[in-house]
Amino acid sequence: VNFEEIFEDYTMKEAKNSGFRIGIDLMGCDAQPTQIALAIAELLPSLPPSLDIVFLGTSTSLPALPHPRIHYFVAEEVITMDEDPLYAVRRKKNSSLYQGMQMLQRKEIDAFISAGNTGALIASANLALSRLRGVDRTALLTLLPTKGSQSVAVLDVGANPAAKAQHLLQYAAMGISFQKSCSIAHPTVGLLNIGEEAGKGTPEVREAYQQLSELNKDPSAPPVFIGNVEGRDVFNGHVDVIVTDGFTGNIFLKTAEGIASFILSQIEKTLVEHKTAHHLSDLLMGMRKRLHYAEYPGAIVCGVDGLVMKCHGDGNPAAFRESLKEAFRLLENGFLQKLKVAF
Amino acid sequence: VNFEEIFEDYTMKEAKNSGFRIGIDLMGCDAQPTQIALAIAELLPSLPPSLDIVFLGTSTSLPALPHPRIHYFVAEEVITMDEDPLYAVRRKKNSSLYQGMQMLQRKEIDAFISAGNTGALIASANLALSRLRGVDRTALLTLLPTKGSQSVAVLDVGANPAAKAQHLLQYAAMGISFQKSCSIAHPTVGLLNIGEEAGKGTPEVREAYQQLSELNKDPSAPPVFIGNVEGRDVFNGHVDVIVTDGFTGNIFLKTAEGIASFILSQIEKTLVEHKTAHHLSDLLMGMRKRLHYAEYPGAIVCGVDGLVMKCHGDGNPAAFRESLKEAFRLLENGFLQKLKVAF
Repeated sequence: VNFEEIFEDYTMKEAKNSGFRIGIDLMGCDAQPTQIALAIAELLPSLPPSLDIVFLGTSTSLPALPHPRIHYFVAEEVITMDEDPLYAVRRKKNSSLYQGMQMLQRKEIDAFISAGNTGALIASANLALSRLRGVDRTALLTLLPTKGSQSVAVLDVGANPAAKAQHLLQYAAMGISFQKSCSIAHPTVGLLNIGEEAGKGTPEVREAYQQLSELNKDPSAPPVFIGNVEGRDVFNGHVDVIVTDGFTGNIFLKTAEGIASFILSQIEKTLVEHKTAHHLSDLLMGMRKRLHYAEYPGAIVCGVDGLVMKCHGDGNPAAFRESLKEAFRLLENGFLQKLKVAF
Repeated sequence: VNFEEIFEDYTMKEAKNSGFRIGIDLMGCDAQPTQIALAIAELLPSLPPSLDIVFLGTSTSLPALPHPRIHYFVAEEVITMDEDPLYAVRRKKNSSLYQGMQMLQRKEIDAFISAGNTGALIASANLALSRLRGVDRTALLTLLPTKGSQSVAVLDVGANPAAKAQHLLQYAAMGISFQKSCSIAHPTVGLLNIGEEAGKGTPEVREAYQQLSELNKDPSAPPVFIGNVEGRDVFNGHVDVIVTDGFTGNIFLKTAEGIASFILSQIEKTLVEHKTAHHLSDLLMGMRKRLHYAEYPGAIVCGVDGLVMKCHGDGNPAAFRESLKEAFRLLENGFLQKLKVAF
């Protein structure tokens, strides 16, 4: 494949058509760029023809997939998983990750997906994109399954370790906007805490409880803030948005992943030992599918003027497909526009 | 049953014999006092004859179980689950919970077990018992199952929401002592954090990382501090002690419980829907048994001069039995004496 030509194809292209264009960073994760690209190319026919894809990668790693709806951007550098985020973003302005963010800023793409270094993704979003009016801090939003029919949106799961009360209030507003985009008419908000009583937790969390209570000031409307929620009750399906600081949120998310993996592996081990019927594998596969984060669309970098998605975990091709579907859904729903008017 | 006589039987008793005497608070939890007492009485024959039990409860709730190794203490008040801990402990000095702590302080009992209000239990331990030399703060220690053969000890799971670096260092020392009492010759310590790199987390956690690194200063010994551990890796069985502040630790513990309950209930639902073979119920019962906290001995209030155990959750009789067995094991092992010389 002639990368000069490909590069030209992209840069020479006229202002994008009326559809959407989503940029996908093929670099910086464990998966092979070609595998990611193939998975996306396979999915493309099932998405509307107005959607175009721009793959970002180094010249030696970009796959040769001639396709009218796939474009390429050749980056010169790669930010790896183990690099210090701030240092990497400052030094590697020509990386696929930072260049993608630049394209988003210039409106050459409508959304940007990466499975690379999370810290670098957030840092470059903060650097390249303007912050939404009324939002002081970027937050990472993720979805988790519940016993109910709807997933719960949890934020912040790791963009900023600490959070003051006003930040948690802003996270609540962003989470509500997100759940409205998932067709929940009146999303409820809970504060992740170590007990249900109002006086529980650190001084910041107690202050946040007071400020979040203001969300219920309209006595004629159903309450938005349902109070403190303990770790074990997040999965009950009784709350739509959980707000917490990025340290606690990240511990929460990874603990949930860790214990899920632990339990399923224990059950599988027992089944193998007992040579249990084959049809159970299907059941467990289903459980894994339901619980494994690759089946979830990834995390959304909330609070900046641009739709940025972090594809989960090791960035396997299935996870990229889910991220792409979700990014497209959020574009179609006008999530970012709704978020802007929420403040 | 004549409670005056029972009360007299206890107070008139000579200084306790060479064995151990464990106090059990029958009040303040969801279980019926009589059920708890019956479960303990059933277990007693399997424990050495030198162990005596003192049940604490109100006169109307104490069961009539004449048994040469069971004694009774009549308390006048009960601290309930939903009371403010500090307020309750200050006002209800005649409660079974506070009186038990007083008996522990006077060495009339060697250990005290309660399934009541956790905050009140910790507050009364802090009030009635002296703190161990070298320990600034009480911490709640709990055990969790791992993929390995040993459980992991996690502290603090909720005694103090915030923790400074030196507190986490003290928690590490207490966790090491505990695991040594579980026959682990060289316990390792990990710091619960949002990434493995040294620079991760809040300023307090980063400072704790530096201070914990001092545990490895002997180059001839295997390292004690293995660094940061993420939520998902706690269950790997690669680390014996996890230290964290009480806010994060409590969220961690309850999230683990919540997701475990969520997964097992989902699997059970699927099995019922598919009318799967009966022998699978046994498998899932086994999993529940392995994962359910009632099968774990409860949490230990560490850092005070007395062995205080919080029986888990709703305090069902099975959980009380596990707590009693563990309290007796810790007494036989001289856990508290070992803890004192660790500082």
